Amino acid sequence: MTKTFNLDQIKKAMKNIDVIKIIEEGFIAYSQGKVVVPPVGEMIFEEPPGETHIKYGFIKNDDYYVIKIASGFYGNYKLDLPSNYGLMLLFSQKTGFLSCILFDEGWLTAVRTAAAGAVAARYLAPKNIRRIGIFGAVEQGRLQLGYLKEIVDCRDVIAWGVNQEELDVYKKDMEVQGFNIQTTLEADDITLSCNFIVTATPSKKPLVRSELMLKGTHITAMGSDTPAKQELESDILQKADIVVADSLSQCKLRGEIFKALEAGAIKAEKPVELGNVIMNKELQRGSDDQITVADLTGVAVQDYQISKAVYEELGYYL
Amino acid sequence: MTKTFNLDQIKKAMKNIDVIKIIEEGFIAYSQGKVVVPPVGEMIFEEPPGETHIKYGFIKNDDYYVIKIASGFYGNYKLDLPSNYGLMLLFSQKTGFLSCILFDEGWLTAVRTAAAGAVAARYLAPKNIRRIGIFGAVEQGRLQLGYLKEIVDCRDVIAWGVNQEELDVYKKDMEVQGFNIQTTLEADDITLSCNFIVTATPSKKPLVRSELMLKGTHITAMGSDTPAKQELESDILQKADIVVADSLSQCKLRGEIFKALEAGAIKAEKPVELGNVIMNKELQRGSDDQITVADLTGVAVQDYQISKAVYEELGYYL
Repeated sequence: MTKTFNLDQIKKAMKNIDVIKIIEEGFIAYSQGKVVVPPVGEMIFEEPPGETHIKYGFIKNDDYYVIKIASGFYGNYKLDLPSNYGLMLLFSQKTGFLSCILFDEGWLTAVRTAAAGAVAARYLAPKNIRRIGIFGAVEQGRLQLGYLKEIVDCRDVIAWGVNQEELDVYKKDMEVQGFNIQTTLEADDITLSCNFIVTATPSKKPLVRSELMLKGTHITAMGSDTPAKQELESDILQKADIVVADSLSQCKLRGEIFKALEAGAIKAEKPVELGNVIMNKELQRGSDDQITVADLTGVAVQDYQISKAVYEELGYYL
Repeated sequence: MTKTFNLDQIKKAMKNIDVIKIIEEGFIAYSQGKVVVPPVGEMIFEEPPGETHIKYGFIKNDDYYVIKIASGFYGNYKLDLPSNYGLMLLFSQKTGFLSCILFDEGWLTAVRTAAAGAVAARYLAPKNIRRIGIFGAVEQGRLQLGYLKEIVDCRDVIAWGVNQEELDVYKKDMEVQGFNIQTTLEADDITLSCNFIVTATPSKKPLVRSELMLKGTHITAMGSDTPAKQELESDILQKADIVVADSLSQCKLRGEIFKALEAGAIKAEKPVELGNVIMNKELQRGSDDQITVADLTGVAVQDYQISKAVYEELGYYL
């Protein structure tokens, strides 16, 4: 019988999983060429506006393959439904038969995305973080801080959002977790005061202005995962000392690096891949003066790692 | 709660569905440009040898979108498992949320494939069929005859297979359904005696030899659905009066038309699309002397039509 698991079961299992560790291992395997990740499948809907991504792949000679379906439908709020939805299907690499379906409602995608941010921070964040800036004060902005806590010491945060109500809730929630939270509706307030910035919005025009950036800033840009989305001025990637892609092949087709290549702001040789950054000290931040950018578009190996870990963890409860 | 349905429920629902009709309507919508079908997603596994296809798409401004996963793992017989496996997921085009999962184990893919063969036969088969030739005496070869029964009168059949045991079982099963079945292990026996041929094998080298073909033969080639597979000598497509693709864009990348284009045997303008054939009498067979070929690689609109029909039919039982 096919095993299906709901969000409560998945969240319980995740408590026993070191997600930053498995995501880091996934990026290493990916940059070592041990992972097969075909191009992302995509469907775009016009009315109501929505999009669905299919990410899939496997680690060669391992036990499973994953197919992850994730959608964002931006009119769902009118129906009192969340915008994002998703599920993960894990299959046997030996027989093609289904191993399990994780009805995570998109939560595992949010978690593996936040964990990738923490991995990037481990190798690229400046030693002395003056203040953390968060663009996007909803789910991903919450999870980002949650996982960053394990990597950086700074607890001073300023969050940008599109309305004050959202920001007030964010402030309240994150202060419970031990952060000191300021909020703003002005994007420049972040750029002018933070040397560690995370962008996690579906914006189609840049939020971070190059000319306002502080020396030594690190930016993790994770909102842009389609050819249309963009959170950073391309000039930022030009001026950066280190530009990191979670997947070089994927970032050439979508995200900030795609935008910067399209604009002629950087050359194709500039970005380095996160798995290689983890493995090579020379590719990591060398001083608190450097500007670094990590462009995270989300790679199927993250979905592989997290769904495999959850399935094997859940196996113990059966 | 997510609705999941098993094979028994699905088979029961299918009894009330006119599958040839809905598949024909799907091809019409597709050729009218009303359907979005992104490129097929594919994973290839080496040891044990296997492949997984992801087909997905939707009819614009309709209710759902479908994601269909189908695999073939050719070492499964050693584990007493069938080679083919699959499931279909239907989602709301309004919210992105899952509508249902059909755990059909690949059966709906087999059925919609066979129904496409019947649609092709309706518009391309010669009036007087001397004998029906079937390459591949397993599941698809059974279903093909089952649906052809609704379209053609001929009941004389010769089936080719890779071993006599398989052929004996096929003969027994299909004679119960009212056919007169001969069997052979020699491919040429089919080509030399049949003017209606269906190829439904995973062969990587041609089974039908051009020089042996009878005048006025129709061939429905449905086995080849990857760039590596081929059941017909490319010369057959050159000599054919009418070459039909289920999807022009897809057949340029996989299947017999891909092979013939690659070999320079036909020009890209030669193939016409099945939906257009259905709509235009001039594109259909005009006499019993013509040679016609339908290259069916399997299009997501078929998966859309069948999963939607099953879901809506099952809705009545809830």
